[in-house]
Amino acid sequence: MFGAQGRAVHQCDRGWAPVFLDREQSISLMSVGFLLEKPDEAVVWRGPKKNALIKQFVSDVAWGELDYLVVDTPPGTSDEHMATIEALRPYQPLGALVVTTPQAVSVGDVRRELTFCRKTGVRVMGVVENMSGFTCPHCTECTSVFSRGGGEELARLAGVPFLGSVPLDPELTRSLEEGHDFIREFPGSPTFAALTSIARRILDATPTCLP
Amino acid sequence: MFGAQGRAVHQCDRGWAPVFLDREQSISLMSVGFLLEKPDEAVVWRGPKKNALIKQFVSDVAWGELDYLVVDTPPGTSDEHMATIEALRPYQPLGALVVTTPQAVSVGDVRRELTFCRKTGVRVMGVVENMSGFTCPHCTECTSVFSRGGGEELARLAGVPFLGSVPLDPELTRSLEEGHDFIREFPGSPTFAALTSIARRILDATPTCLP
Repeated sequence: MFGAQGRAVHQCDRGWAPVFLDREQSISLMSVGFLLEKPDEAVVWRGPKKNALIKQFVSDVAWGELDYLVVDTPPGTSDEHMATIEALRPYQPLGALVVTTPQAVSVGDVRRELTFCRKTGVRVMGVVENMSGFTCPHCTECTSVFSRGGGEELARLAGVPFLGSVPLDPELTRSLEEGHDFIREFPGSPTFAALTSIARRILDATPTCLP
Repeated sequence: MFGAQGRAVHQCDRGWAPVFLDREQSISLMSVGFLLEKPDEAVVWRGPKKNALIKQFVSDVAWGELDYLVVDTPPGTSDEHMATIEALRPYQPLGALVVTTPQAVSVGDVRRELTFCRKTGVRVMGVVENMSGFTCPHCTECTSVFSRGGGEELARLAGVPFLGSVPLDPELTRSLEEGHDFIREFPGSPTFAALTSIARRILDATPTCLP
């Protein structure tokens, strides 16, 4: 999604140097994908090996000074999530951003993730609903492809903020596929407005030195 | 999705009795969901505990005589997948049915799953593409919401059969949410035709005693 396929991680004197997306080093990435010799290689790792690598990604990467560290986890409540929480606990993470799609099957999974956050003492910053309806580019009518309102209802039941909905947008997918900058190409789109509003609500709710 | 929430697993003299969906016991289910006291409870289990339960689901459930045993796994190539393959190996499973969505990010993950199948000696029965375009119910124009053709291309590259595409269909979601029988209510829909064709191709390609 960042167009960083094929980039490699190098060793520097302070640890692994992350992959930088720009000269200003404003976004740096680390992923198991950068450590594989072939991109098709299956990462056939059991829990303990995954846990060890997650720990290393926090402690052995020369992150430098960061405003935000975002960890994108798989769905669920298993090894990866426990390892991430354990590795980050000394740094007092701001919390978990919980993403669901609107339909009941996804909301059911995410309810268990909220219980997991409560059990492990992780603050929930809020719920985001993804794939929230599709506006037909031909007739501009909007259809709820995957049911409706699941994210907002979940946030209400869990007593956490609902941060907003991101629609299904073929232009977003196309930008990611083709390596274009969606933000520069579609600044007037409803999807961009939705993403910006969610980001703004997160920034407003978190203590930070950023403007 | 089967409307089996709240059903419980009982102990019988041959082991755990699965949850039966109908009187004829034509579909029986087993899920960790049936074993939880509260549906919101997070299953905070590390690999070894998950592996043990998967093994039990194969060996300790009184499945009776089955035509097909379908195991729905999470995405990826980790503990659950290795445990499933190990538990089923003595029964010579027919193979893996690999499901992707059309966009590159999903296809990339699924390529690694195909490598995993090769490494672990599991035959790939074929690739199915899910969320393959959306036909607007207002104007009947079809849009590729998530890119296009990723599943077919992947099957071609991996040299495995491409079994078909399932469109995004709000009626399917609604049926699952509201507990209706999609097959009875929408037998003329393109989604039903797509699902039937995929099932038929799988049946045709597998040795079976079914008609």
